[in-house]
Amino acid sequence: MAEPLPDLIEELVSDPQSDDSAALLTTLLSEDDVSIATLLESLPVENRITAWESLPRDRKTDVLVEMRSDPREILIDATPDSEWALMFADIEAEDLLELMDSLPSRLMDLALAALDTQQQAFFREATQFADSEIGHWLSHEQLVLPINAKVRDGLRLIRRDVPAHADTVFLVNRSGQFSAAVKLTRVFGAPEHVPLVELTVENMPVLKGTDDATSASLMVQRSGFASVPVVDDNNKLIGRLDVTSASELVNEKYERQVMASAGMDEDEDLFSPVAKSARNRALWLGINLLTAFLASWFIGLFEGTLQQVVALAVLMPVVASMGGIAGSQTLTLIVRGLALGQVTKANFRALMVKELKVGGLNGVIWAIIIGVVASFWFADGALGVVICLAILVNIVSAALAGVFLPVILEKLRIDPALSGSVILTTVTDIVGFVAFLGLGTLFLL
Amino acid sequence: MAEPLPDLIEELVSDPQSDDSAALLTTLLSEDDVSIATLLESLPVENRITAWESLPRDRKTDVLVEMRSDPREILIDATPDSEWALMFADIEAEDLLELMDSLPSRLMDLALAALDTQQQAFFREATQFADSEIGHWLSHEQLVLPINAKVRDGLRLIRRDVPAHADTVFLVNRSGQFSAAVKLTRVFGAPEHVPLVELTVENMPVLKGTDDATSASLMVQRSGFASVPVVDDNNKLIGRLDVTSASELVNEKYERQVMASAGMDEDEDLFSPVAKSARNRALWLGINLLTAFLASWFIGLFEGTLQQVVALAVLMPVVASMGGIAGSQTLTLIVRGLALGQVTKANFRALMVKELKVGGLNGVIWAIIIGVVASFWFADGALGVVICLAILVNIVSAALAGVFLPVILEKLRIDPALSGSVILTTVTDIVGFVAFLGLGTLFLL
Repeated sequence: MAEPLPDLIEELVSDPQSDDSAALLTTLLSEDDVSIATLLESLPVENRITAWESLPRDRKTDVLVEMRSDPREILIDATPDSEWALMFADIEAEDLLELMDSLPSRLMDLALAALDTQQQAFFREATQFADSEIGHWLSHEQLVLPINAKVRDGLRLIRRDVPAHADTVFLVNRSGQFSAAVKLTRVFGAPEHVPLVELTVENMPVLKGTDDATSASLMVQRSGFASVPVVDDNNKLIGRLDVTSASELVNEKYERQVMASAGMDEDEDLFSPVAKSARNRALWLGINLLTAFLASWFIGLFEGTLQQVVALAVLMPVVASMGGIAGSQTLTLIVRGLALGQVTKANFRALMVKELKVGGLNGVIWAIIIGVVASFWFADGALGVVICLAILVNIVSAALAGVFLPVILEKLRIDPALSGSVILTTVTDIVGFVAFLGLGTLFLL
Repeated sequence: MAEPLPDLIEELVSDPQSDDSAALLTTLLSEDDVSIATLLESLPVENRITAWESLPRDRKTDVLVEMRSDPREILIDATPDSEWALMFADIEAEDLLELMDSLPSRLMDLALAALDTQQQAFFREATQFADSEIGHWLSHEQLVLPINAKVRDGLRLIRRDVPAHADTVFLVNRSGQFSAAVKLTRVFGAPEHVPLVELTVENMPVLKGTDDATSASLMVQRSGFASVPVVDDNNKLIGRLDVTSASELVNEKYERQVMASAGMDEDEDLFSPVAKSARNRALWLGINLLTAFLASWFIGLFEGTLQQVVALAVLMPVVASMGGIAGSQTLTLIVRGLALGQVTKANFRALMVKELKVGGLNGVIWAIIIGVVASFWFADGALGVVICLAILVNIVSAALAGVFLPVILEKLRIDPALSGSVILTTVTDIVGFVAFLGLGTLFLL
């Protein structure tokens, strides 16, 4: 994080119209686009719009590109139509791909018309890939030469202009197919008449446009190269993925997982309008309510028992929550393993056996502890035995659910990071209540 | 992820001693160190050790460096003492900094002795920084020249060797203080007699060794440079942070947050020994048990009420879980904001007001829905009113807890991603049960 960010937030929130605003603006503009985007996201809506309006038009589009969609859309709505023509003057395909989900169709048309022919071609090509595929997220500024080029051609090309994070020249054949890459530093070191093919990188990694965006990004991050060439099905060079884009894609993926655990998406705005925010979260509350009512319905089957042994009602949360925690630990471990490609058919059985053993061991230990505490608390040994067995059953079945659920969800193409925990808790609640109250009915009446 | 990973896991798990093992090994060795590390982590312990033993000694240390500590320690324990002298032959300070927490002291001494004088100095310098500070994680291979150097000096330096992700030459004064940076591509483009100071980058970002590791890494990721110079308090150049290390640090931070939500750390091994795994998770289960017993104790205060109105026992999970979900949504949003530096003193009040309004709106809506359902289910209008009020109280206090808890925890230097959810659930459980059963005692007896 940029150091001055908190101070800027402070100033802009407390006194947006102050005399210091000119000085503030200067500080703001000296920041990079990501920092300005982060700052705007931190401001309550009114202050955010004021700060936005004070930005010069030529920074605005670049800043929008770096924002999350929810806060971004507020600024798009606040921008008068007359400004857009100028804001789109230098827009490129890459920017528009970031913005396209936030722009209303009339602005989308305007932006598309502002792209030159080549950028329009890039845009069309990118949209042929899903946004989960790396082909959607390429940059097209790159150093390309024909396969028979010499060092002197390389030098001429490089002296003109080197785009950010381009550390190699890509060599292509006549059909535009990628053939090899040469490090810039080797081009400079060599005599002018040497053919570039003699200097190529061994084992240069190459990505396919249809490769999974996250996996491809992780690969680029550890490749040791500043960018990696990307080809289509016919091996034609269609662009490159650089380390900056790779980091953005990976960070976004992680953020999605963090937010998904609470049923939100990564675009949630700190300061979205109350009605919108309430609506965003209502779905998750609603789903949760259905599962809670389901659990209640199961408890209701044992009303007679509860009336006679009220201690069961008192201890219900203990049984449910121990299962929930044990299950979520297994679930989290497996979800991470799936995301990293570490959980596969091959090791699934071994993993299940291990988690069952861990669940069994922790189940026995905590079942005994809880059983003893409950026996003394309610001076009822039979109650202790009942809760002991219920905890054991619940922790072991939580482990099973934690292993199987994410794998099944992934097969069904449902994101286990999003729905795993709510389904898991439903399972552990119901198993816990039924085991506890069922055993109670058998042994305590 | 490397494509062949799942196949390799399959082969190594199903038939580790097969005739194909030579072919397998060849495939394995053609992978980068991170992929091999990922593969080893995916294997059950026995298979992991077999695969590990088949690796050539000169790859072993590099692979260990890329592994998480838990699975790594299993391999360290499985390596005979006689091998280490050779495995440490080419070790550098950076590797040892990654491994130091996993190595027993006798191996640590061996490794330290294997470092040459300069690497020992780097190691000592790095350990003067905490591992949350960027000074702990620097690389020291860099291109450095005196401030008065000319293009010709630059060319001579670069032609010798350019380390990975070095895209600039750093210029230092006589005291070794960082003064400016020049892009390699500009060095190559210029006449030999030109002083390098005439070609320097404007606004080159510079980090301090004491800067927070995550913030510094995010800055490098978006700087547009492949690496950023790092200085000490006296502005002396002490190393650089490159995009690869930056990505590793950021990814690790996110993973920590994901795992922390279930009370585990990011080093948890998919296949750690059962006893160790059970112990790792026991602490979290124990803490959770205390909070569950606390909730039960509060329920116990209302035993008399529960005996007379058993419907209250049936509906308890609904009240508790609606509060838990609403609170965790607010909590997750605030924890993310704190991590990104977006939640500060300045916007805290505005944020609290907004979350209270969202909580109020969702509270009212769901309170009414649940009240109506409960009235019909139990044919008891008063019960409907009681649960309606209890839900409203619980969702609003959940929003308050979700805003205040992470901020308070951060002030106390407790990681809100780790302990936030368990404390929040305790609050929402207790508030929910007390509100529901308390109102029930007042209105239903």
